Amino acid sequence: MKAEIINPFLEATLSVLKTMASLEPIPGKAYLKNGSSATGDVTGIVGFTGETEGSLCISFSRACILMIVTRMFGEEVKEVNDEVKDAVGELTNVISGDSRRRLEEIGHHFTGAVPSVISGPGHEVKHITRGPILSIPFSTKAGAFTVEVCFK
Amino acid sequence: MKAEIINPFLEATLSVLKTMASLEPIPGKAYLKNGSSATGDVTGIVGFTGETEGSLCISFSRACILMIVTRMFGEEVKEVNDEVKDAVGELTNVISGDSRRRLEEIGHHFTGAVPSVISGPGHEVKHITRGPILSIPFSTKAGAFTVEVCFK
Repeated sequence: MKAEIINPFLEATLSVLKTMASLEPIPGKAYLKNGSSATGDVTGIVGFTGETEGSLCISFSRACILMIVTRMFGEEVKEVNDEVKDAVGELTNVISGDSRRRLEEIGHHFTGAVPSVISGPGHEVKHITRGPILSIPFSTKAGAFTVEVCFK
Repeated sequence: MKAEIINPFLEATLSVLKTMASLEPIPGKAYLKNGSSATGDVTGIVGFTGETEGSLCISFSRACILMIVTRMFGEEVKEVNDEVKDAVGELTNVISGDSRRRLEEIGHHFTGAVPSVISGPGHEVKHITRGPILSIPFSTKAGAFTVEVCFK
């Protein structure tokens, strides 16, 4: 996969978290996965269609998303409640939209579907595709999260 | 929501499970949800775009999906392993495709994204939309599953 496809997702994630949560997570090395699955406690997921079909997911550990939402809301959030799930949905929507805007600038056109938020300790997300699955790990002081993008 | 939009999803689910698993689940009454979430042990989820955006998810209890996959494979399956997750991905893909084909026949055009399969006991799926969320419950001798469709 070309770097020109990876960078919009990486840059959108950094830009949106900086804007919405004043957070600067440290990106690890992006890599292509072969079949294994993302795990997390809260995951935002949104499909997209266009020149090809795909899906974007962002999986957070519990501690990590509580820290992020605490920063977004400006008050301490201690449990994964409905407001936290809605915030993950909003982050997913905005990161998906910002990624697509950046892809558009380099000539790739996609439309986003409606996001869903999955919650449940240690759930696993498996992408059903024979195409490439790109994984970008991020670390924060409160734990890790992962952005995954798969294509058909 | 008009019945003409509900029926393609209902009919596709019944048709695909009959063809792929020789199963005739009993559909309950479809209803419009206001905010609550689907729960399940294994969930297939796929976004779609077109005249509007949306998402389709199918959430199975563990016992129900093990029974369905046992019927699909023709041999007893006792745990939610990778083959079960792939089978849920395939069911989601085929039900999504068959629903879209039926919608196409009545003039509604949608394109499907890449499906994902979520696994983890009692996880919850929340649709991030202000639009309608349609829920169709199904029962089988081995337990329940739910088809949900949301629109933007």
